[in-house]
Amino acid sequence: MTPDDIAGFFAARKNLNLDDYVELDFDFECTGDPREAAAHLCSEQSTAQWRRVGVDEDFRPRFAAKVLDLDATPREKFSIPVDGVPDKSVHACRVTIAHPHGNFGPRIPNLLSAVCGEGAFFAPGIPLIRLQDIRFPDVYLAAFQGPQFGVAGLRRRLQAFDRPIFFGVIKPNIGLPAAPFAELGYQSWLGGLDIAKDDEMLADIPWCPLAERAAALGEACRRAERETGVPKIYLANITDEVDRLVELHDLAVENGAGALLVNAMPVGLSAARMLRKHATVPLIAHFPFIAAFSRLAGYGIHSRVLTRLQRLAGFDVVIMPGFGPRMFTPEREVLDCVRACLEPMGPIAPCLPVPGGSDSAATLEGVYRKVGSVDFGFVPGRGVFGHPMGPAGGAKSIRQAWDAIAAGRSVAGDAESHPELAAALATFGGR
Amino acid sequence: MTPDDIAGFFAARKNLNLDDYVELDFDFECTGDPREAAAHLCSEQSTAQWRRVGVDEDFRPRFAAKVLDLDATPREKFSIPVDGVPDKSVHACRVTIAHPHGNFGPRIPNLLSAVCGEGAFFAPGIPLIRLQDIRFPDVYLAAFQGPQFGVAGLRRRLQAFDRPIFFGVIKPNIGLPAAPFAELGYQSWLGGLDIAKDDEMLADIPWCPLAERAAALGEACRRAERETGVPKIYLANITDEVDRLVELHDLAVENGAGALLVNAMPVGLSAARMLRKHATVPLIAHFPFIAAFSRLAGYGIHSRVLTRLQRLAGFDVVIMPGFGPRMFTPEREVLDCVRACLEPMGPIAPCLPVPGGSDSAATLEGVYRKVGSVDFGFVPGRGVFGHPMGPAGGAKSIRQAWDAIAAGRSVAGDAESHPELAAALATFGGR
Repeated sequence: MTPDDIAGFFAARKNLNLDDYVELDFDFECTGDPREAAAHLCSEQSTAQWRRVGVDEDFRPRFAAKVLDLDATPREKFSIPVDGVPDKSVHACRVTIAHPHGNFGPRIPNLLSAVCGEGAFFAPGIPLIRLQDIRFPDVYLAAFQGPQFGVAGLRRRLQAFDRPIFFGVIKPNIGLPAAPFAELGYQSWLGGLDIAKDDEMLADIPWCPLAERAAALGEACRRAERETGVPKIYLANITDEVDRLVELHDLAVENGAGALLVNAMPVGLSAARMLRKHATVPLIAHFPFIAAFSRLAGYGIHSRVLTRLQRLAGFDVVIMPGFGPRMFTPEREVLDCVRACLEPMGPIAPCLPVPGGSDSAATLEGVYRKVGSVDFGFVPGRGVFGHPMGPAGGAKSIRQAWDAIAAGRSVAGDAESHPELAAALATFGGR
Repeated sequence: MTPDDIAGFFAARKNLNLDDYVELDFDFECTGDPREAAAHLCSEQSTAQWRRVGVDEDFRPRFAAKVLDLDATPREKFSIPVDGVPDKSVHACRVTIAHPHGNFGPRIPNLLSAVCGEGAFFAPGIPLIRLQDIRFPDVYLAAFQGPQFGVAGLRRRLQAFDRPIFFGVIKPNIGLPAAPFAELGYQSWLGGLDIAKDDEMLADIPWCPLAERAAALGEACRRAERETGVPKIYLANITDEVDRLVELHDLAVENGAGALLVNAMPVGLSAARMLRKHATVPLIAHFPFIAAFSRLAGYGIHSRVLTRLQRLAGFDVVIMPGFGPRMFTPEREVLDCVRACLEPMGPIAPCLPVPGGSDSAATLEGVYRKVGSVDFGFVPGRGVFGHPMGPAGGAKSIRQAWDAIAAGRSVAGDAESHPELAAALATFGGR
């Protein structure tokens, strides 16, 4: 690129109508001139060739992505070696780009293609790049429905205020037929869970068909509601081929599911948005596949970008990798994702963050302290269903832990008079 | 895990009915005992808790993923640093796992959740992992349609045998209204392209609506066919929200598109499979988003896995990052993806590989030599549409280069008597 070519991809914020742009924060490592690399990054994701041969025109003022800010720091070599790319004149850069959303419109696949596509990951001179964050103007967000129930709607449905929402993943997750599977859910509701859920890998399979499972769990759920006097939800996993989602929504809900789980990336965010238009119950996102591009600090896509997109697609709840070394996710990243669920997002309602991973009564207080509010879901698996006193005992242990926390007492102290809590701490506390 | 727990996740090939399993090759780096890490990897992706509390049962024989082979080599530290994970007793491992497909069935989202999900990327002790390859038994593949046209069908449609298929990405890719956009396509067909295509970022947008574009390009395509006497295809990009794909298929085809482009990951592989059931024209996959999880040697998912899945979903053509340092993709990886398109895959027909990235008449011979056969597509953008003699000259330069190669002559030699080829080599040859 010539200096003039490069300059055409830079702009000052005050000279743009920011309603026309999504803003992207990228970190990247480049070889050569950082300004030229940043210009290429804009060019490749928008007007890669901005004029016809022999025609005096320039599509960049309206259609080009533009650099708003660029910081570059020399570094000795790439933070991650890239096959075939020599460490030559390397800079680590942070850039904010304004990308005109009129290029693609309020469509998730086209948005993803523009901001996480060939343009971002194949810009000349930039072998390492990470999309760190994305911001949308309200006029863009207004084209999306967002969560139908959100945090407030889910709380109303469960009549659960001023505390976390207590989920549990029914285990054994794979292999049980509907009847014994429902019995586990029933026990966990009696013990105090709000929502007993299918594992994200449990599908509509012949050895435990969704219709039969939803009927058995739905019946168990209503029985538990009658016996406890408290609203309960069976959360059915309807992750399946896209052209079955609406049919499975109806099948699961008619049979007794009160909310539906979808693996957001495997099904696709656009399919989730389609389901949202049809849904009559809360939609819960699970996180398979996201770690494949979000784990490393120096490459890929920050998981909060996916959290924002899941909220935009209309999920009421987003289950995400939680705290602790077990989930390989830095605490600040979990908190970034929690905030991405709850913070203001124009007309889009908040969704409930559920940071999860090997949780139990022993980890509840830590999660609560880190999140810093009651607006989260807590989702043990073995912490409830592998509890030595069974799922009712496991669920009780969670509620006993919360009662201690809410009253400002020590969880360990309360364990002395609560055998379920004591057993949970003894079994899971060392993890 | 106890030694007995670990042993339950190992099996010998001869003791399994391999028709019941997909096989997965993972490379991973772990801390601690590699056998235990491999067992966790199996457990997390299948029966994470394989018995109910208080019940004498074991779901593993039928439902567990099982280690078939494991090689472990100590290494000093992780190949990529992972935030919060200390370099303690690190091993680099290669493992082959048999994963029972009865756990999820012939459904792409559930397959992805099982093999690229929480189980693969959150196994205890394994912060770094890469799914290197996947193999399916024929009985599993038989549930999929695969490509409708494939390589042979596309060749018949174009009456183009014994040579590569010549694509071109119409540029300027963003900003042109339908009429001048169609004129560029028309010129490129006259010059010798088989298929003129929309850029993967060009959507159904108000400044160039798909219906209008398909009508203009369809008319131009028929005109070019009449004038050249050779079949031509306009490849329209219908990447959009999932619930518009079928409608846009019909709209584009009725107006004149002869094939359809879909950004496979942004739309979702399952949505592509849905479209395949409805499609009456060849479906072409483009590669946005895949690099976000496939570029690094030590983490993520190898791009050939995605190539196989795109073929399985029913794409007739797979556009992929091609050769040369510009695309940051090692030559062996490009060739792995090419092979994944063409090699036998049970009942699933071959699809056409299109390794692309800054191609022109100057790069054709290199691509052909590397691929080692004529079964590929060649997809320049600026190499045709940024050619100093315009798109007709650009397309001619490609065909002139191929004529030289096919006849065993030197491309540079032929340039002496072919001004389009000479201009292409002068303009693009130094890249």
